[in-house]
Amino acid sequence: MFDIKFKVLAEDSWSRARITQFETPHGTIETPVFMPVGTQATVKTLTSDEIREIGFKIILSNTYHLYLQPGASIIEKAGGIHKFMDWDGAVLTDSGGFQVLSLKDLRKINSDGVEFKSFIDGSKHFFTPELVIETQEKIGSDIAIPLDICGTYPSPHSETKRELDITVEWAKRSLKAHKREDQILFGVIQGGFYKDLRKEAVERILELDFPGVTLGGLSIGEEKELTAEMVDYTVSLLPKYKPRYFMGVGDPISILEYVRLGVDMFDCVLPTRIARNRTLFTKTGTIKITKAIYKEDFTPIENDCGCYTCKHYTKAYLNHLFKAKEHLAGRLATIHNLYFMNWLIQEIRKSIKEGYFKDFYQEFKSKYKEGNNSE
Amino acid sequence: MFDIKFKVLAEDSWSRARITQFETPHGTIETPVFMPVGTQATVKTLTSDEIREIGFKIILSNTYHLYLQPGASIIEKAGGIHKFMDWDGAVLTDSGGFQVLSLKDLRKINSDGVEFKSFIDGSKHFFTPELVIETQEKIGSDIAIPLDICGTYPSPHSETKRELDITVEWAKRSLKAHKREDQILFGVIQGGFYKDLRKEAVERILELDFPGVTLGGLSIGEEKELTAEMVDYTVSLLPKYKPRYFMGVGDPISILEYVRLGVDMFDCVLPTRIARNRTLFTKTGTIKITKAIYKEDFTPIENDCGCYTCKHYTKAYLNHLFKAKEHLAGRLATIHNLYFMNWLIQEIRKSIKEGYFKDFYQEFKSKYKEGNNSE
Repeated sequence: MFDIKFKVLAEDSWSRARITQFETPHGTIETPVFMPVGTQATVKTLTSDEIREIGFKIILSNTYHLYLQPGASIIEKAGGIHKFMDWDGAVLTDSGGFQVLSLKDLRKINSDGVEFKSFIDGSKHFFTPELVIETQEKIGSDIAIPLDICGTYPSPHSETKRELDITVEWAKRSLKAHKREDQILFGVIQGGFYKDLRKEAVERILELDFPGVTLGGLSIGEEKELTAEMVDYTVSLLPKYKPRYFMGVGDPISILEYVRLGVDMFDCVLPTRIARNRTLFTKTGTIKITKAIYKEDFTPIENDCGCYTCKHYTKAYLNHLFKAKEHLAGRLATIHNLYFMNWLIQEIRKSIKEGYFKDFYQEFKSKYKEGNNSE
Repeated sequence: MFDIKFKVLAEDSWSRARITQFETPHGTIETPVFMPVGTQATVKTLTSDEIREIGFKIILSNTYHLYLQPGASIIEKAGGIHKFMDWDGAVLTDSGGFQVLSLKDLRKINSDGVEFKSFIDGSKHFFTPELVIETQEKIGSDIAIPLDICGTYPSPHSETKRELDITVEWAKRSLKAHKREDQILFGVIQGGFYKDLRKEAVERILELDFPGVTLGGLSIGEEKELTAEMVDYTVSLLPKYKPRYFMGVGDPISILEYVRLGVDMFDCVLPTRIARNRTLFTKTGTIKITKAIYKEDFTPIENDCGCYTCKHYTKAYLNHLFKAKEHLAGRLATIHNLYFMNWLIQEIRKSIKEGYFKDFYQEFKSKYKEGNNSE
């Protein structure tokens, strides 16, 4: 396995927030880190150059989607996902488990793997832990995730325990199947919303000695307090010297919250998805750029924002582009929202490094009002 | 009226092809020139920086669309279309006549102007020559076009004559209404497919002494030979010292043909529209990038193309993006097609300047096969 040379560079005295650093075959990653999502080997609307210019060094791509389109062997023949999509930073691919298991009626799980139907043509496929590892090896991501069972909520203890057993078994099979020396595997910690099962998951996954761990099955959206409680408990059981990744979290307040609880890595489609839906981040909360008040607002989204969009265009222009259903609208909004996420992460790192994370946390939370991001 | 300081820099000995140059309030334009279309104050999918980087110095925007959304007064308050859309090159706005008159059932013409319904909300509007000038003055384009009647084909001689009379009358009213010193007006030559009426139009429009002229009502698509004959005849009547603009033409072969006949300026949505419909220009004709043969083609669209897309991405990646319905697909294709148009124009200019336009014309036409651009 690739040696990630993990280091803890700074620790907050008030919370579990920390700055860490580790190596990947495509560069050094400093955490806390937010990874933009490039589901289909493209962060929607942007070129890889633009992702790089905003300041990102690692992105996430989805194994499930790439497996179906264009197919892992195409990416392998292209020389890997980095060459395919012109990205020289690091790439993390998920296991595909979350997507496949979201299909509900379209999938069947047994201890050997999971059967699912393609969202493209309805064809049947069967993901085994070995196939998922092989797929990610062909894709050539820097960090790969073994196939796991991401449970539902609520779910009976017995079922969650059974899914945990399968996930641990699959983790072992994945390690055995994994060949690439230039790829890192992160172990997935499941266990639903049961503390005893989370504890068991941590112990059994740590035993397998993955270079990093990922918290699965906790991004259920509505039950934020319960999620925070489970994250808090699970992270408290984790060793200091491994990166901790919480899958599928990406709103500013949650990131701040989970950094406080000791999480290092995040990814989410939220910043890019709401951007295409005309919702923009500001330091005081989200705004809907199509509102009438912006029609004649000839100032940038935020005056002190350094993003390409704010340096070149006004709210009035963005208002026009969205109303006119222009392609450029979602792109300019995506640039701004991703820049904002990277700004937030940079500020968080700085505040940890310089010892004022508590102040930053409290000030940001008091100023930032979550808008209504729905249609 | 703004002094365009028009110069003829070179003339071909074999044909009417020529290189000319003139000034606008936003820079010097060298012709032959192709203007990308930014209908709604944005060339679809691209930033103004990208248009500039490809090499364009003038774009076209549509008065009709801007009048309805965001409205000319918003653009005026923004400081004009250049500031609004972050474009420091020149802008030509059309008269809106073509769009309004394409609405058929939704419009009524009388000698005072044309009534039409908004495509956005069905509201009624009335374009007069004066309102169209006022709208373009608010937009702040460098070159504006007076309201005209773009006839249909076929059309009786008497009706075409009546429409010509109105167009000339409206040209006079437009000149009278026009106030901006930093804006150029081009006169529109109508007259349908009747040589006597084209001759009359040329004489009556030239009498009004617009700094440039535009050939209207000839882009009817199917009847290419008839169009070429009418362009040939009309241009033969034009004076040397005015730029000649043929509205709505933008396929490579037609540009080559009309440059030969003495046309200087072109615009068309074709290169950008077919790009979003997965059709790409190459020196040997158009290709459909979603074809199966490109799925594993890890070379650029054209090996010797210098565009951003060809320098960073392969056909296999573009094939994937289009199949996956990704936003980036249309954008990368648009960059390539516009780069190709600018390359073609540069090559045409070079061949005129260096005296081998005939060879270039013949070689390009023999190699370039028009593909089937339909779905």
